[in-house]
Amino acid sequence: MSSDSSTLSPVAIGLVQMVCDESKQRNLDQTLQRIADAAAQGAQIICLQELFALQYPCQSEDHQKFQLAEPIPGPTSNLLAQAAQQLGVVIVGSLFERRAAGIYHNTAVVFDADGSQVGMYRKMHIPDDPYYYEKFYFTPGDLGFQSFATRFGRLGVGVCWDQWFPEAARLMALAGAEVLIYPTAIGWLPEEKQDYGASQQAAWETMLRSHAIANGLFVVAPNRVGCEDALEFWGTSLVVDPYGNMLAQASSQAEETLVVECDLGAVDGARTHWPFLRDRRIEAYAGLTERWLGDDQ
Amino acid sequence: MSSDSSTLSPVAIGLVQMVCDESKQRNLDQTLQRIADAAAQGAQIICLQELFALQYPCQSEDHQKFQLAEPIPGPTSNLLAQAAQQLGVVIVGSLFERRAAGIYHNTAVVFDADGSQVGMYRKMHIPDDPYYYEKFYFTPGDLGFQSFATRFGRLGVGVCWDQWFPEAARLMALAGAEVLIYPTAIGWLPEEKQDYGASQQAAWETMLRSHAIANGLFVVAPNRVGCEDALEFWGTSLVVDPYGNMLAQASSQAEETLVVECDLGAVDGARTHWPFLRDRRIEAYAGLTERWLGDDQ
Repeated sequence: MSSDSSTLSPVAIGLVQMVCDESKQRNLDQTLQRIADAAAQGAQIICLQELFALQYPCQSEDHQKFQLAEPIPGPTSNLLAQAAQQLGVVIVGSLFERRAAGIYHNTAVVFDADGSQVGMYRKMHIPDDPYYYEKFYFTPGDLGFQSFATRFGRLGVGVCWDQWFPEAARLMALAGAEVLIYPTAIGWLPEEKQDYGASQQAAWETMLRSHAIANGLFVVAPNRVGCEDALEFWGTSLVVDPYGNMLAQASSQAEETLVVECDLGAVDGARTHWPFLRDRRIEAYAGLTERWLGDDQ
Repeated sequence: MSSDSSTLSPVAIGLVQMVCDESKQRNLDQTLQRIADAAAQGAQIICLQELFALQYPCQSEDHQKFQLAEPIPGPTSNLLAQAAQQLGVVIVGSLFERRAAGIYHNTAVVFDADGSQVGMYRKMHIPDDPYYYEKFYFTPGDLGFQSFATRFGRLGVGVCWDQWFPEAARLMALAGAEVLIYPTAIGWLPEEKQDYGASQQAAWETMLRSHAIANGLFVVAPNRVGCEDALEFWGTSLVVDPYGNMLAQASSQAEETLVVECDLGAVDGARTHWPFLRDRRIEAYAGLTERWLGDDQ
């Protein structure tokens, strides 16, 4: 039996799904207001969408946009730390981090309920697709896949594109995470939405549910909404239980703050009823560290 | 561009979903008839459910049941080889293999369209749950996760419980598989069905779809139907495309033979549009070969 308090009682997880404005100040104000609202509704762990302080900056390759980045600690992370302390909640935020000249990251920061910084995660898997030119901006993370022990539970944190990689989810689970949190900024290209939109959103949701099932833990993904230039962000922020059941999901268009009770004790139950961690063939997995094992085609 | 013929044209994949009788002869006869029917409908790759020649033998731990096993090659595998040759189709069968005194496996065999044995896969992840006492019967496989080049495509083959493990799907994809095939025998315990049945079946389906998405390939799962002792097998055999879309799915109760056209060229398209294989952080995945990376609890 676990002696960790996080498995002894339910925890309320808050997700902030919102539209981002061109005004960083307005985004910060709105985020802090929504954090306070979530806390007032009982949320103990509050999760923000990817790069919540900004409109999604990667739709073009623009050197000027590096000026949007901040150090950590820095002004925005300090606001989150203060909110965490004042409200007594854990906060998972997502920031455009300036680490040094020429080294920028897409970074999630975890603040404990006393306002201390538990740790941070620098996005490991960096996308690069039309209108998601992240490889131009973000140096791949070098902190690996971790879990963070907070007052209200052990959290794994990935960022957006990471959610397509079962390896990341598994490594966070093996590191002890009971909840995986994916701050997200994913949306449709309007010209693709008619034909592929439903399938794309379903695939995203399927991957998140699969991580919950395969690893026997909760999965939380706050995503932004609204249109910014070429992208329509699809919202549908969600919380999934360790059997893959959808506990709550926001709409695809409205700003919403979800507060969802999650009984972290269910992690233990799921992993004994579906004992996948027992049966992993770890001696046969070395190939996972290879790029390709087939013939070149 | 690939020079492999498998990516130049669609392939028709057949799945046999059926009830198994206590009579092995009847199961074999029915299977061969359904293989012929599928071939007559144009199927080029025909996939059989797990241990198709038998009622599922693992609901109890019974030493007598080891007598049901056969060597490979052996009588049942020879029947499949003959059918493959006569019909000019690839067949993926699933057998209770006797390898040596005291060494038995749950083995899938792949026959090419000329009747030759391309290879075999011995189930790597062995379940052990109430009414699925497979660890009593099956020695864990020692052939690893492979892909098999056949006349009609490169196939990865897992067996049932393997489908819960993203590692297995990934390794088969990296080995070159364009289609993952999971012969399956999964069902409900009647006393759980009311409360958990829909969730259990959905989780199974979600995992299969997630493998297709994460790896950009087709996933095929033939499952048995019907009640045998304590288990009600849930059928719903399925074919999923590389974006996770369900191309076809059988019912949960009826015997069915599906024949589904799959354009293997879609693998190439999916992997450039969703370039997950490009972005894997292989230098950060070493922990996947560990049992646990967290603190003992």
